[in-house]
Amino acid sequence: MSFATTSARTVDAHRERVTEMLRPLAARPAEQVAVPAALGRRLAAEVRSPIDLPVFRNSAMDGYAVRAAEVLVAPVRLPVAGVVAAGAAGGDPLPPGAALKVMTGAPIPPGADCVVPVEDVRVDGAAIIVERGRAAGEFVREAGTDVRAGAALIGAGTLLRPRHIAALAAVGLAEVGVLREIRAAVITTGDELVPAASTLAPGQIYDSNGVALAAALTANGVRVVSVAHSTDSPDEFRRLLRAATEAADVVFTSGGVSKGDFEVVREVLAPLGGEFGSVAVQPGGPQGWSVVHGIPVLSFPGNPVSTMVSFEIFARPALRELAGLSPVESHVVPLGDAIRSPAGRRQFLRGRVLRSTTPDSALSTPAPVAVEVISGAGSHLIAGMAAADALIDVPAEVTALPEGAPVRIWLL
Amino acid sequence: MSFATTSARTVDAHRERVTEMLRPLAARPAEQVAVPAALGRRLAAEVRSPIDLPVFRNSAMDGYAVRAAEVLVAPVRLPVAGVVAAGAAGGDPLPPGAALKVMTGAPIPPGADCVVPVEDVRVDGAAIIVERGRAAGEFVREAGTDVRAGAALIGAGTLLRPRHIAALAAVGLAEVGVLREIRAAVITTGDELVPAASTLAPGQIYDSNGVALAAALTANGVRVVSVAHSTDSPDEFRRLLRAATEAADVVFTSGGVSKGDFEVVREVLAPLGGEFGSVAVQPGGPQGWSVVHGIPVLSFPGNPVSTMVSFEIFARPALRELAGLSPVESHVVPLGDAIRSPAGRRQFLRGRVLRSTTPDSALSTPAPVAVEVISGAGSHLIAGMAAADALIDVPAEVTALPEGAPVRIWLL
Repeated sequence: MSFATTSARTVDAHRERVTEMLRPLAARPAEQVAVPAALGRRLAAEVRSPIDLPVFRNSAMDGYAVRAAEVLVAPVRLPVAGVVAAGAAGGDPLPPGAALKVMTGAPIPPGADCVVPVEDVRVDGAAIIVERGRAAGEFVREAGTDVRAGAALIGAGTLLRPRHIAALAAVGLAEVGVLREIRAAVITTGDELVPAASTLAPGQIYDSNGVALAAALTANGVRVVSVAHSTDSPDEFRRLLRAATEAADVVFTSGGVSKGDFEVVREVLAPLGGEFGSVAVQPGGPQGWSVVHGIPVLSFPGNPVSTMVSFEIFARPALRELAGLSPVESHVVPLGDAIRSPAGRRQFLRGRVLRSTTPDSALSTPAPVAVEVISGAGSHLIAGMAAADALIDVPAEVTALPEGAPVRIWLL
Repeated sequence: MSFATTSARTVDAHRERVTEMLRPLAARPAEQVAVPAALGRRLAAEVRSPIDLPVFRNSAMDGYAVRAAEVLVAPVRLPVAGVVAAGAAGGDPLPPGAALKVMTGAPIPPGADCVVPVEDVRVDGAAIIVERGRAAGEFVREAGTDVRAGAALIGAGTLLRPRHIAALAAVGLAEVGVLREIRAAVITTGDELVPAASTLAPGQIYDSNGVALAAALTANGVRVVSVAHSTDSPDEFRRLLRAATEAADVVFTSGGVSKGDFEVVREVLAPLGGEFGSVAVQPGGPQGWSVVHGIPVLSFPGNPVSTMVSFEIFARPALRELAGLSPVESHVVPLGDAIRSPAGRRQFLRGRVLRSTTPDSALSTPAPVAVEVISGAGSHLIAGMAAADALIDVPAEVTALPEGAPVRIWLL
């Protein structure tokens, strides 16, 4: 393997490689979950309605069920023979020459063929006066006119949103088959890392990559089954890797991939067939990609910003597609600052999006109109990254851009 | 109170009223949660960094720590006096006239003031040859250059995304104060409603509004603490309402709000000061709004589509703002079909968005270019709603629109 910049692969080539490694996760098994818990999950197979909707012929209004033929010559006075509530069995037929009061959703009594809304009649003691003629079918919802029993209700692969959950509930389903979530394990590496709230000894820093990758995975529809930290001991990393590949569909590691003296990830994974190399990108140049016991293992560099940017540009697009989520949002906008960029490497700078403030602003998120650079290029600037809301994509061949130059941005 | 269409309030007026009722929920208390669990929550107060980041002066590269003054006249040969790993205490100073190998992130040894990257030196036995002069500070990350101890890290009210979680972890915080989620209770009403997977008796339908409202609330950053169903018995509804107002910050009910004979919600809430009236909208005309023991209670009509559209147009904008989420997405696009609409009522038709397919399609969600009507106007067409991905907003005064007319759409 080579780390020479001249042989570095492009960002697009590496993203394509990662996407290809993750593609088998599309074929994950289905599992049955309760309908309310299926929100945000992907439907495993097309759901057909087990029943007609509406289930039975019912009234669209609070009003009076009548025979249209009996109110053809209006005004006409009809005695009210009773009331049909929503939930009533609806077995009693409408007597000839009469009306039955019906509530919205109540069954249309046998014999009736239209409903006169309550606001369109005059009540006259125990009778109503219908003021004008009515057509058969008015304000009657026929059974099966929304969906027929056996007809397709929701397509396979659909990401289930509230309106789908509503439809599943409306046809009486208690459970539904959804694709199992993608299960990910995260292993961070480095002797220098200590857990949150520890007292830092000289040379130590807090382990943020585990928490950060877990959050990024969760936010993109992936279920994180474990987050572990390994020292630079190959035995410890090997042990954690084994547990991770047994529990997860995909493993993410941080650190230990470049050409220092203590590169535990590379040391363990390269002999297992893992590949390690350079991508012509800043941050995130050194990358590793392996398949261990059939499980893809993506190895990002350990600098916090490198880890997060690697996730954003290499893994996030494919993971979102697998989870059924919308693609990462991207725009081309003018740059708010002049910048310089290293030759031969595509650079992802941290930016803050400026948005228009139109009269529409209160209604909807306004479109991005520009982006400003808000942090240095250093891959350790994690606080700077927190203040950003976009990555500014500076092509590899570009070494300088003036203020106002159009750049592609990727929303974080 | 009046239900006459002539006195009906506008959609905007009712949304404003609902927004005003929900506004006190902005002042909800803070709670401490573990940093990983804070993803998607709103920061209660500004977080200041408890430490400098970087914590200590460290190397940006795998390379050799040297004194810039000693490599001014290059090439120069320096013996390598040792190795500083990441995580090393870093107490040993750099001997004069020598280099110390340093890993990325390792402390810069006292005396050194720059790092020569490993790819820029020739190794010559136990020494290195530095080929060109170096400036003090090169590849050295000074302590505190990302954020200083005591400086603002993340602003109050920020919706915590993965990059914020990363920054909180990087400064060693184990817990963080976030606004408590808005807690909602849902009560559906109607004798005709039965739970999922029951056998339907004549006149019965499945209760979908509870599941649907719970899903819609969850999808918009609200925590659903209870979902209950009440028959049309005022005593039962009163009991469920009391439990709901004790457990939740806001209560949503469905059904029982219009002018039929069995309007349990209105019957119980009106004597408690609840208001019930008509909004000039279809679907969703009859609406109720009450404050019970200081808790806002929003009462939607019971037709499934009316319930969901009421949530979308009246409650969702304010709830998203309270949760720190982006506004509901809205566009103006040409209508794919000619439509008719009732005079005097703003109509929200169910539509399916057509999107452009540009070369950018693989990168980002393409912009909507048109919308087609995909379901009838009936408020019972829940399967039709499942197939929609937008509401088409037809102004109250419009009675017909030709194909191609511009319409505002609201993405579901």
